[in-house]
Amino acid sequence: MGGSELRFLAPFRGEVLDVPPIWLMRQAGRYLPEYRATRAEAGDFLKLCYTPKLAAEVTLQPIRRYGFDAAILFSDILVVPDALGQAVRFVEGEGPRLDPIRSADGVSRLTLAGAVSKFDVVAETVQRLRQDLPHETALIGFCGAPWTVATYMVQGQGSSDQAEARLWAYRDPEGFEGLIDLLVAASIDYLDRQVKAGADCLQIFDTWAGSLPDDEFDRWVVKPTKTIREALRELHPDVPVIGFPRGAGATAVWYVSETGVNGIGCDTATPPFVMSEAFDEEDVVVQGNLDPLLLVAGGEKLDERVDEILDLMEGKRFIFNLGHGIVPQTPPENVGRLVERVRSKG
Amino acid sequence: MGGSELRFLAPFRGEVLDVPPIWLMRQAGRYLPEYRATRAEAGDFLKLCYTPKLAAEVTLQPIRRYGFDAAILFSDILVVPDALGQAVRFVEGEGPRLDPIRSADGVSRLTLAGAVSKFDVVAETVQRLRQDLPHETALIGFCGAPWTVATYMVQGQGSSDQAEARLWAYRDPEGFEGLIDLLVAASIDYLDRQVKAGADCLQIFDTWAGSLPDDEFDRWVVKPTKTIREALRELHPDVPVIGFPRGAGATAVWYVSETGVNGIGCDTATPPFVMSEAFDEEDVVVQGNLDPLLLVAGGEKLDERVDEILDLMEGKRFIFNLGHGIVPQTPPENVGRLVERVRSKG
Repeated sequence: MGGSELRFLAPFRGEVLDVPPIWLMRQAGRYLPEYRATRAEAGDFLKLCYTPKLAAEVTLQPIRRYGFDAAILFSDILVVPDALGQAVRFVEGEGPRLDPIRSADGVSRLTLAGAVSKFDVVAETVQRLRQDLPHETALIGFCGAPWTVATYMVQGQGSSDQAEARLWAYRDPEGFEGLIDLLVAASIDYLDRQVKAGADCLQIFDTWAGSLPDDEFDRWVVKPTKTIREALRELHPDVPVIGFPRGAGATAVWYVSETGVNGIGCDTATPPFVMSEAFDEEDVVVQGNLDPLLLVAGGEKLDERVDEILDLMEGKRFIFNLGHGIVPQTPPENVGRLVERVRSKG
Repeated sequence: MGGSELRFLAPFRGEVLDVPPIWLMRQAGRYLPEYRATRAEAGDFLKLCYTPKLAAEVTLQPIRRYGFDAAILFSDILVVPDALGQAVRFVEGEGPRLDPIRSADGVSRLTLAGAVSKFDVVAETVQRLRQDLPHETALIGFCGAPWTVATYMVQGQGSSDQAEARLWAYRDPEGFEGLIDLLVAASIDYLDRQVKAGADCLQIFDTWAGSLPDDEFDRWVVKPTKTIREALRELHPDVPVIGFPRGAGATAVWYVSETGVNGIGCDTATPPFVMSEAFDEEDVVVQGNLDPLLLVAGGEKLDERVDEILDLMEGKRFIFNLGHGIVPQTPPENVGRLVERVRSKG
């Protein structure tokens, strides 16, 4: 089946399906015993990302179990800084650690040329997946948005307020822009390689888009995403790009209009029907937004909410997804129940 | 000066001032050396909240320095669970700790009757402040919203995703509702006592409003806040209530319409001009939303942004504030610079 006929891509072609396509953020992950086994085999988390055979295997695992309409490349948004030369390590139970970069001098030590070999390893995973995936399954490539990736590079780890990146952006906007510009260039190159290797669709994860006031949101979230979107359109006009500006709330509509993304991922707090209504005349696919914790709870409440979302989105160009990634304590059978419920629609 | 002529209350009377009233969330706090001294004198954080002389002193400190248009009672949102019988302790450098409540049985051991003596201690602070505050300074009372307070009571501490409260609400909505109902009743009683003791205005802090999908947001954020708002209106029709549903984003407009709050606090990511435009015909005062980290950075960028916010809000019923609380590393002189800049307007 050629990319353009994939069921997953129908909403981007302007089609409304009776049963919306479904995939789930972090569908390959710790809630699956087979993932935990492959993860143990790899030893280190980044080694899992950089070993095409194993990364492809964990990407395929949820497809085998649930038959989602799309697979998403298994990787991590911090592959980009790691490839650029800011070594990333994952501390068990704590998360990622990087030696923080907080000056133009630190940025100058990173190189895009040096990143290519690691990007190509990820592209090899994509190639492998393109071979091994069922013909009817779309393959989503992805990267972290420059802003979100920068927050980790500047903080040196995850944080609840992204304070160091925000402070650097206020105190030395030109210096911080150097980092963002490098990430824009790297993201374009990285996504281009993913598409050339076989990705049918791309998602840009902007997990920390919600911490910024409007002027900073425009400069560090909207404009870089727009540059990436436009560059990709030149290179691959038919490959849709989904933006996921988590927490953008009242400014998510603006994000869509300005960046030119083809799809908008709604976080748990952003009702898809509200987002959809804001774009009645525009060609934007809405994706989301079941609460990952309701997928943990399961039961009739899960069924009822799934039905409610489907009812509210009937007749719209819609992709069923969560509002954030699957959490590790999710019972795998609840994911099966969800997929069955969505598919029993219509 | 009687409460009704207070400058701070002018926007609630429908007046547009050339220079908007200004106060800052967490204006009494660790960024001030005199606060740190009083805090050290009290020893324990909760003891500071429960000692009227000391709590009044730290409330007054930023008024002496900056002459804000309003003081906000110094207390903590966890006074309510503590008073209800779920002992709260503050661990230095880590935050609050409570023995988690996760069942109707746990709720049944809490009592509103037992809370009164601690509420009255807080009311004594309010009385003291009413005497000691300059006549032109309004006094804001407050409580945490039931949802946000419940997230701490169920989790037993702060958390980034409020998972335990959300899971309980999904698995046993009736049981969780028992906790919310108790918090609604306690909040009404607590705020009533604050007004009787001299508070001119009330704010309801819903720090974790942004984690909920629309149906849960309606049940656990909007409806309880509406009940509190309506009860207070019966008791004290002239006392305005400001809601601060942090992270509500696209659903903040709905929150205002449904709850009947008189003012809406905009978080850092919610542009006040967007919020204001949504309520052109309604009697809602918009408050916010300078980034607390820009107050850390200071400099010309701070001046420019203050001017921009003032320009965008010109002619609107507006209260100048931050989008979240002052952070401890804020240089006190930047707060002075901000106040001067706002006051030099017009």
